[in-house]
Amino acid sequence: MTTVFPLFNRVALIGIGLIGSSLALAMKKHGLAGHIAVSTRRQETLDTAQGLNLGDSYSLVAADAVEDADLVVICTPMGAYETVAKSIAAALKPGAVVSDVGSVKTSAIRDLAPHLPAGVHLVPGHPVAGTEHSGPEAGYAELFPGHWTILTPSENTDEQAVAKVKALWEGCGSIVEVMSPGHHDRVLGITSHLPHLIAYTIVDTADQLEDDTKQEVIKFSASGFRDFTRIAASDPVMWRDVFLNNRDAVLEILGRFTEDLTAMQRAIRKGDAAMLIETFERTRAIRRSIIDAKQHIPDVKPDGED
Amino acid sequence: MTTVFPLFNRVALIGIGLIGSSLALAMKKHGLAGHIAVSTRRQETLDTAQGLNLGDSYSLVAADAVEDADLVVICTPMGAYETVAKSIAAALKPGAVVSDVGSVKTSAIRDLAPHLPAGVHLVPGHPVAGTEHSGPEAGYAELFPGHWTILTPSENTDEQAVAKVKALWEGCGSIVEVMSPGHHDRVLGITSHLPHLIAYTIVDTADQLEDDTKQEVIKFSASGFRDFTRIAASDPVMWRDVFLNNRDAVLEILGRFTEDLTAMQRAIRKGDAAMLIETFERTRAIRRSIIDAKQHIPDVKPDGED
Repeated sequence: MTTVFPLFNRVALIGIGLIGSSLALAMKKHGLAGHIAVSTRRQETLDTAQGLNLGDSYSLVAADAVEDADLVVICTPMGAYETVAKSIAAALKPGAVVSDVGSVKTSAIRDLAPHLPAGVHLVPGHPVAGTEHSGPEAGYAELFPGHWTILTPSENTDEQAVAKVKALWEGCGSIVEVMSPGHHDRVLGITSHLPHLIAYTIVDTADQLEDDTKQEVIKFSASGFRDFTRIAASDPVMWRDVFLNNRDAVLEILGRFTEDLTAMQRAIRKGDAAMLIETFERTRAIRRSIIDAKQHIPDVKPDGED
Repeated sequence: MTTVFPLFNRVALIGIGLIGSSLALAMKKHGLAGHIAVSTRRQETLDTAQGLNLGDSYSLVAADAVEDADLVVICTPMGAYETVAKSIAAALKPGAVVSDVGSVKTSAIRDLAPHLPAGVHLVPGHPVAGTEHSGPEAGYAELFPGHWTILTPSENTDEQAVAKVKALWEGCGSIVEVMSPGHHDRVLGITSHLPHLIAYTIVDTADQLEDDTKQEVIKFSASGFRDFTRIAASDPVMWRDVFLNNRDAVLEILGRFTEDLTAMQRAIRKGDAAMLIETFERTRAIRRSIIDAKQHIPDVKPDGED
């Protein structure tokens, strides 16, 4: 497909946190949008976005931002999706593409699709990238290169609309994959949501220790624990919404994890050396296969920050 | 204390894996040892160590290496400690210092102390540093700067012996702290052993998924899961011995963790948004306090690899 730049004449960003601001900067850097209209609920955040020159226009009213927009990207917490959809529906022009950047896709469709008018194309998306920081000041244009973006349109979605959203994320340096929303939620449940839940929990467990032990834990927090604290510093609002919205997939994988952890506990209690070493040798092999997988994907970072 | 170099005329390293080889290279780099005698069980490993010029003499017989040694550092898997202690006891000269680098201290003392002759000074140690790689080829002199080394001598241990081992690790760039072995094992149980156990388990859980999901997990293993795979690639033998030997502290903290994880599961099942966000906000604060703590400790790396 020959790509015409800009891909979209007018793009509206509803919400302007880490992902929204990074997308704005990437679109500007690569000339992907003619006009970027930024909208968010709070004046203070809007002023910060304007101070950072993230867009071309700024409004507290989402409906104003989406007027005449070719593409609308919802970058708010997922808990706000339904409210946002209702507030913009009447202002969307026919043929507009509506997308998002949320970490759970079945719930995104559940909350957005019923409120969007016919003739508007919903292409839910999830750029699998982020840092432990939040807000418009945290964004940067180079967040997406080397990272996947997963799109989860329904099967009868307009192909051109999907292709344009794909081109957008590719233009930002991301590698795009299309899959069903349920499959996305299951896979991310394992690769992202459960690891985050576990990280939050282990940091919380350490936090509830007696003060003298706790000080030492902070002091000697290298050696494994510190990795968990980095993950557990992720945006609380975003992650609350992830667990509320990907409930079933998370509970399923959490159940499996708990069974496996109990088996490990049993092996430790019984001193079952063979079981332990067999598990650890098997998991080391998986690490190797992940490193190998990275090497065969062009442009995907071999390692590094998420 | 005025430091006289070399600190030790003759140092024997029993075992020559990642830590042993890194210690050898650091001692050479900083002139801390007059003569480094390397001993290990397997000819192949010994040849590799010699090829890397890690020592000044090489022997398959530990008792030969420790003859006339001022310092013996046991760098074998902890499961071998008792065998090593029995094999070297008769060859140790009076006043020799015996130390180690193992991750569990109460068991190190349990396995070493009964076999060492009177007049020999046991100063158990644990450099809290490492990578996912193993073996003599993995070592490097700069492993220890910015990292803690914890020493756990008993209260009546010769003070000069403790001071010299402290000076050794400081000479390697490490920051040394002295504490009781039980306290060490509890703190490392939380900061290191439990995180590793959890990482091993989550990778194992993912490994047991159906093949199509598993391929996607490998593919999309950024976003949290990949951090766990790095931890779970740690040396299987070493970690088997950690869990066998720090059993009680690990089971205790694992019990607390499981209770907390069950509380999270319950909150997710019930959609308890308030509980989730309150937990996540609290854990984010802990991350900040760890970053702050790092900044006030001179020479400790603010962040980076363990």
